[in-house]
Amino acid sequence: MNRPGEYCGLCGVIGSRTAPSALAAEGLLAQQHRGQEAAGVAALTDNGRILLHKRKGLVSEAMADAPKALFDGSVKAAVGHVRYGTFGGDDILNAQPILVSMAGIPVAIAHNGTISNAGSIRRDLQRKGHILQTGTDTEIVLHLMSRELERNNYNMRRCFDIALSKLEGAFCLLLLTPEGMYAVRDPLGFRPLCLGRIPEGGWVVASESIAFSMTGAEYVREIGAGEIVFFSGDGSRPSVARFDGAAELFRSGDGLAQCIFEHVYFARPGSMVFGDSVYRVRLEMGRRLAREHPADCDVVVPVPDSGMFAAIGYSRESGVDLDMGFTRNHYVGRTFIDPTQAARQSMVMRKIQPIPSAVAGKRVCVVEDSIVRGTTSITRIKALREAGAREVHMRVSCPPHRHACYFGIDFPQQDKLIAHDRSVTEVARILGLDSLAYLSVEGMLSCVGAHPVRDYCTACFTGEYPVLPPSDGYPGKEEP
Amino acid sequence: MNRPGEYCGLCGVIGSRTAPSALAAEGLLAQQHRGQEAAGVAALTDNGRILLHKRKGLVSEAMADAPKALFDGSVKAAVGHVRYGTFGGDDILNAQPILVSMAGIPVAIAHNGTISNAGSIRRDLQRKGHILQTGTDTEIVLHLMSRELERNNYNMRRCFDIALSKLEGAFCLLLLTPEGMYAVRDPLGFRPLCLGRIPEGGWVVASESIAFSMTGAEYVREIGAGEIVFFSGDGSRPSVARFDGAAELFRSGDGLAQCIFEHVYFARPGSMVFGDSVYRVRLEMGRRLAREHPADCDVVVPVPDSGMFAAIGYSRESGVDLDMGFTRNHYVGRTFIDPTQAARQSMVMRKIQPIPSAVAGKRVCVVEDSIVRGTTSITRIKALREAGAREVHMRVSCPPHRHACYFGIDFPQQDKLIAHDRSVTEVARILGLDSLAYLSVEGMLSCVGAHPVRDYCTACFTGEYPVLPPSDGYPGKEEP
Amino acid sequence: MNRPGEYCGLCGVIGSRTAPSALAAEGLLAQQHRGQEAAGVAALTDNGRILLHKRKGLVSEAMADAPKALFDGSVKAAVGHVRYGTFGGDDILNAQPILVSMAGIPVAIAHNGTISNAGSIRRDLQRKGHILQTGTDTEIVLHLMSRELERNNYNMRRCFDIALSKLEGAFCLLLLTPEGMYAVRDPLGFRPLCLGRIPEGGWVVASESIAFSMTGAEYVREIGAGEIVFFSGDGSRPSVARFDGAAELFRSGDGLAQCIFEHVYFARPGSMVFGDSVYRVRLEMGRRLAREHPADCDVVVPVPDSGMFAAIGYSRESGVDLDMGFTRNHYVGRTFIDPTQAARQSMVMRKIQPIPSAVAGKRVCVVEDSIVRGTTSITRIKALREAGAREVHMRVSCPPHRHACYFGIDFPQQDKLIAHDRSVTEVARILGLDSLAYLSVEGMLSCVGAHPVRDYCTACFTGEYPVLPPSDGYPGKEEP
Amino acid sequence: MNRPGEYCGLCGVIGSRTAPSALAAEGLLAQQHRGQEAAGVAALTDNGRILLHKRKGLVSEAMADAPKALFDGSVKAAVGHVRYGTFGGDDILNAQPILVSMAGIPVAIAHNGTISNAGSIRRDLQRKGHILQTGTDTEIVLHLMSRELERNNYNMRRCFDIALSKLEGAFCLLLLTPEGMYAVRDPLGFRPLCLGRIPEGGWVVASESIAFSMTGAEYVREIGAGEIVFFSGDGSRPSVARFDGAAELFRSGDGLAQCIFEHVYFARPGSMVFGDSVYRVRLEMGRRLAREHPADCDVVVPVPDSGMFAAIGYSRESGVDLDMGFTRNHYVGRTFIDPTQAARQSMVMRKIQPIPSAVAGKRVCVVEDSIVRGTTSITRIKALREAGAREVHMRVSCPPHRHACYFGIDFPQQDKLIAHDRSVTEVARILGLDSLAYLSVEGMLSCVGAHPVRDYCTACFTGEYPVLPPSDGYPGKEEP
Repeated sequence: MNRPGEYCGLCGVIGSRTAPSALAAEGLLAQQHRGQEAAGVAALTDNGRILLHKRKGLVSEAMADAPKALFDGSVKAAVGHVRYGTFGGDDILNAQPILVSMAGIPVAIAHNGTISNAGSIRRDLQRKGHILQTGTDTEIVLHLMSRELERNNYNMRRCFDIALSKLEGAFCLLLLTPEGMYAVRDPLGFRPLCLGRIPEGGWVVASESIAFSMTGAEYVREIGAGEIVFFSGDGSRPSVARFDGAAELFRSGDGLAQCIFEHVYFARPGSMVFGDSVYRVRLEMGRRLAREHPADCDVVVPVPDSGMFAAIGYSRESGVDLDMGFTRNHYVGRTFIDPTQAARQSMVMRKIQPIPSAVAGKRVCVVEDSIVRGTTSITRIKALREAGAREVHMRVSCPPHRHACYFGIDFPQQDKLIAHDRSVTEVARILGLDSLAYLSVEGMLSCVGAHPVRDYCTACFTGEYPVLPPSDGYPGKEEP
Repeated sequence: MNRPGEYCGLCGVIGSRTAPSALAAEGLLAQQHRGQEAAGVAALTDNGRILLHKRKGLVSEAMADAPKALFDGSVKAAVGHVRYGTFGGDDILNAQPILVSMAGIPVAIAHNGTISNAGSIRRDLQRKGHILQTGTDTEIVLHLMSRELERNNYNMRRCFDIALSKLEGAFCLLLLTPEGMYAVRDPLGFRPLCLGRIPEGGWVVASESIAFSMTGAEYVREIGAGEIVFFSGDGSRPSVARFDGAAELFRSGDGLAQCIFEHVYFARPGSMVFGDSVYRVRLEMGRRLAREHPADCDVVVPVPDSGMFAAIGYSRESGVDLDMGFTRNHYVGRTFIDPTQAARQSMVMRKIQPIPSAVAGKRVCVVEDSIVRGTTSITRIKALREAGAREVHMRVSCPPHRHACYFGIDFPQQDKLIAHDRSVTEVARILGLDSLAYLSVEGMLSCVGAHPVRDYCTACFTGEYPVLPPSDGYPGKEEP
Repeated sequence: MNRPGEYCGLCGVIGSRTAPSALAAEGLLAQQHRGQEAAGVAALTDNGRILLHKRKGLVSEAMADAPKALFDGSVKAAVGHVRYGTFGGDDILNAQPILVSMAGIPVAIAHNGTISNAGSIRRDLQRKGHILQTGTDTEIVLHLMSRELERNNYNMRRCFDIALSKLEGAFCLLLLTPEGMYAVRDPLGFRPLCLGRIPEGGWVVASESIAFSMTGAEYVREIGAGEIVFFSGDGSRPSVARFDGAAELFRSGDGLAQCIFEHVYFARPGSMVFGDSVYRVRLEMGRRLAREHPADCDVVVPVPDSGMFAAIGYSRESGVDLDMGFTRNHYVGRTFIDPTQAARQSMVMRKIQPIPSAVAGKRVCVVEDSIVRGTTSITRIKALREAGAREVHMRVSCPPHRHACYFGIDFPQQDKLIAHDRSVTEVARILGLDSLAYLSVEGMLSCVGAHPVRDYCTACFTGEYPVLPPSDGYPGKEEP
Repeated sequence: MNRPGEYCGLCGVIGSRTAPSALAAEGLLAQQHRGQEAAGVAALTDNGRILLHKRKGLVSEAMADAPKALFDGSVKAAVGHVRYGTFGGDDILNAQPILVSMAGIPVAIAHNGTISNAGSIRRDLQRKGHILQTGTDTEIVLHLMSRELERNNYNMRRCFDIALSKLEGAFCLLLLTPEGMYAVRDPLGFRPLCLGRIPEGGWVVASESIAFSMTGAEYVREIGAGEIVFFSGDGSRPSVARFDGAAELFRSGDGLAQCIFEHVYFARPGSMVFGDSVYRVRLEMGRRLAREHPADCDVVVPVPDSGMFAAIGYSRESGVDLDMGFTRNHYVGRTFIDPTQAARQSMVMRKIQPIPSAVAGKRVCVVEDSIVRGTTSITRIKALREAGAREVHMRVSCPPHRHACYFGIDFPQQDKLIAHDRSVTEVARILGLDSLAYLSVEGMLSCVGAHPVRDYCTACFTGEYPVLPPSDGYPGKEEP
């Protein structure tokens, strides 16, 4: 999918009987939707070494040539990462986890999010003589730690705390050292991170709880915003603390900044995210959407698979039949048709095709989770009409996207957002719809239950950013 | 998917402005579900040469290293094939199309089906000194033709007719010669083959009409059983004739033997097959199933994606809410977990996982299109119970599978079919269900409309074979 | 090397304790100079099956992905082939050995040489309905055999005899059947083939005896022209017979047609070829050259490695010091310099470079084994002068090449031979030499000892062909 | 070759009309014998960026997938490296050149030699917080520079000078920055580095002058020990200075420490090294050897190719005929023979085989350049006897190897050196020789002419090291 909003996924496992690295890789597979550009696993062995294997491509491709040692019985903890290239270029150098040797001590790190002040930290490190090897904002954490090692008697925990205290923005981190594994979630809680326990022993940390499915772990709770959790790997419970960081960022009384778009679009419906079932939230969004914006139609048609759950909610609440008006081909790839011969737009059709017998002669209400650029929607709506639909209406289970995201979602430039400067009526006209309606911000927030509404970031819809955007623009971008 | 019932798909294109080979490859992509083992395209050029490119793997993989010439403007016709390895071994030699030089004349052929008397023809050819290069039943057609060339003054059409007259069993064939393209469907019409017309010029033949979606072709009609259709590529209408073949196989007054399982499971819902919309047939099967076997339940849950359409029909007819109780991961591959550490069965879980919040505490009615071995069903039903389902019922939109197929569907040995020797009650017990019911044969046949019910083969359900099984067992098996 | 004259090499092993296929592969490695385009090994197993592995590239590359089974203990005989693509195109289809199933019986064949009447046999087979899969002249042998099988009660030996009786031209063949291995050399003995015995048991057949070095075999004798030798693999001595073939080709009293160019250039100096030591023959050619054409010079400089042995002979006989005036780089490949920037000719310099301190100020006599096109010689002579040589003379250890070869040596078109229409003086001028002289035909033939001089083909020097050139030009060329 | 003593090679090109990167790659090809483990080229473009391509394998393999941009017209300077893995592990991370970004400024470095105090510098850098990415001693140079950048106003030359002043041991360095290229040779001149000028414009620096052959450059002179040469790339002459480094290492009046083994074995005979022609030196060593140790023999046989030049000298001086008693196969690879079936030792035979007709019945004097472990020699001598040699004598064109090298030659552990603790007589017995003799140290040194004898390091023969071995053993070894 070319849909924006894909970023990264994390999975760390420690203390399990089955090789933690194997479970971490399975956890990445279950979170492949969070990043298809690269995948990697770092594994801590009995003798305190860390092995790393990372490659471009899907988890299955990247792990295909992993050395056997990565998955063998001597591994006692592992952290894994799937990458969607927000920035840093697509060089394998920028894949994660990143493994370095600090004064002979191996340390691996994996990161989901965007550190807002990475640029200024990077420049400061360089002034002091540091040579950074990657273009990622992640690597600076390691250099901040490395500077502290000697004066802190090589106490890794202390050095990590100091480094964290200097970071701003959105970050979930997994850190692997010879002593064990750390899991950290930033003070505003932009990105999700949750904790699972394996009944026979061992712990799992992942961006989404769906990663637990193959590990056998049970969902325990979300990692709290501003928490640092340490797992020693000896079977004992992890130690939990708040880290001394970015305190000034806390908007006292203003709550957290959890990304509501995870519920709308990004997370898998089988996951728990920010303490809520994504499935439940989406179904409820569909119901709420039906109440806010009923449509005079014969069938409710989901865009597969993204609009499926909202469409079920919409159908139930409205009483209009749900129907699969589109069929999806799971096998696509580069086209064989010369682009000068074929309309570029129609490529969208290769993946999702209308079923004429399902829509011909009907008033169709298409339910989609979100519209970003609108280009694929145009094609699909046109295809529905060509397949014989009498009317085409669209209902969207979130508000119009009108603002940039600085915290990890790879939306296009603001002016590429179809709703950026346009009224809903104008968007409907461009998309070729008989009617169009979006879920309201209030409606959307009413569907989540685990946190108060002020604990969610809705900046891409409202423009109200939880922290100031970085003064030097998009942070930390530098090619190595 | 490891589900049996996958065989082969064909797509031939001639006379189009866009390179016919590119359109054929797109047509294969849309039919990738019919075979993932190998893919190939043979292309006829302006100067009467035939280029061939075939490889193991998916269409996108197999075509990745195709030479540019295959897709360039000098190509005037192309036939493509996706293969599911029924027999002949997995050697690339057995991939199709097969291209040979007959006395200097290039001829390519692609085949979907099983020629019942291939074994005896093969042995006869060998006695006469022929050396066959592949283990396929397809190659014998070429050798039968080759023997006739000289005595028929190199009239390719005449030689093809003679060869066809000797074949028995199930076969759709595409033949490419310097003169043009032939499309053939066997006299009993086991496998589907349909004709499309490109408005700006050109013709398309494919196993399923979904293959037309990227070619821009309009569905014209199915190729009739026993028809041989020739396309000269000069823009004129194809010439249609009945070929003089296998006449004794026609059961006078007994109708055709079109495979009903194409509608139940194999074809894509967006396709026209045997003159009916697969989508409509499946929805109707769900409705009929609800009338035959209502369930006392809270939600109707489809097995994704196979049970989706029947589930929608079932939900509508029964009035019980449809819900997505399973979520599907499109990214899987080889597992990383040591098989000695993980229960083999739980691998099923990597692809399809239950959503606890959708099923917990509910009486769930799972709708599936068919049950063959039953092994994956056992795992899924167990997973639903672990996710908290109170009751689990299953409704299947075809009758129980109890007999082997000799005409192209790769079912397992009869004794591996879970329903082979068992009552429905016994199957329900093995699957761990609270109740189980199958659609009746009559109910199933009542859902198709384009042909009389006697025109469908239901042998895998009823054991009533349209022709005698081959006397020498599974035909033509020989490794080259 | 881009030098013409490279064709194919054979190695067959049977009955050895070490896997015959491993020894055959080693034998191919030792004969890699005979063909670098493709390599393959066919292995007969205990249970009468034949495994085949062949690939484009060097032996080491081609065998890198060979299945283990090819080399395991169940293999009892093996035939191998290295290919230099004389014709048939570079498709892997044309690599050898060729393995087919004749009426269920596996047969593999490997061939060195050129069957002159392959074209007419091919056309006759096609008229009878045979479909040939390759463009090689080798495959026709198998089809000729296949036609005879039934009427000869599947007696493979008898069928092979019949096929051989129809062949004309140059051919050494190794045939592997479930019964054992056959080795055949054509009646005129164009190409070499020799027999070795492994002291602990087993037999080896190879184009050159250097192939015995890793097998531990001792040289027994050359396979006689017109012999068919059968090895049963049970430890008994091979049975030897003359085959009933091409009798009319024997020029009674005129002797054989053994290729003298094998001794001049093609074979490795460590080999026995046609019963003579290649080393001895080359040294003697150098001595004779010195007697026929002394040079007034300070140093004798061989072109590495081709002129080395003749240069040693020349130096000894003349009493002039030998010196290595050229150094050779064994590591080269595609150039990185844009061909529009660099003179194409100077690429020759990457492989062989003059050593200024060895030649500066000296009168250099370069000794080379042969000159074909002359292009590389021009560059090297120019380089010697640039490195400071005062005079450059050249002595060539064979006569001038002036005629095409129809029996396996891939010389360029006659008019590309620098000496084709030119006097030695003219050639010397073109090459930029102070003097040039070639060994005489008589001188060359005086250096071999195992056969009378009339038993050698010198057609490329003299134009006197041992048989008539094929009436239809270069034989059998057809792309499949 | 498995012979020790292979290390690294450098080639830098600037200001040439032909892409400097293409010429540098050609220069590496000509120096491939100096390292086959990895190869790389860093290229400086018009706009001040540096592109890097490096891979494991031979130059031809490593450069096969280089991006076109690396060789295009915008490149104005390039440095290349071939690596023999002395230490740092075989990870691609340790291939060179190494490219980093120092505060946004790209800098690439390539290194030949061993920095003795790398270990202590590395530890010091780590204490200060630096994270080193590779296990090489090369990377520390960059970190030493990086630390100086800010306080020296980003004056790259100044920072490089400071870094150099801290290094001890053997190092030739090429440094590429947006300003141009630096070439450095350590104060004792362990390793060679020479300067060439391209007549049409541009400069080349390489370990050996043979690298100039394809660049068209003329040999100018060796880079002096302790020199730093800067090339701006604007066509002007390079600026030369002595760098302020390791002054205390200069043994006043004691001369340099140029590695005599470059002349004996390592460099190519066509090269100028330390101001002498390697060809001349080797020929002279052979002559001197003949005078010091005549042999009563019939033929002088070189071990190909290493003993060739000394053998020619030996033959000329002694008046005994030279003969090629061994033939070499340039095509080898992994063996196909099960190691349990074949004597490991005989694998040596695959590469170099005796020619029976050249040695049978003769008293053979084998000339070799050096003996290290002696294992391959044992096999070859045995093979000569099996081929019929009546007596086998050996003459070696350097003294016995008895001591470790700390300055870049990868000799085995001292106790693996066959001569380490043994008399020449004992070695002769182990090798199975009728007689054995080595060139004396004085004899060896008498053959070089460009520098006084005290300017050469002979430590591997004499144990007299030019500087103290590093106190902490083999320096700087750490896996990243």
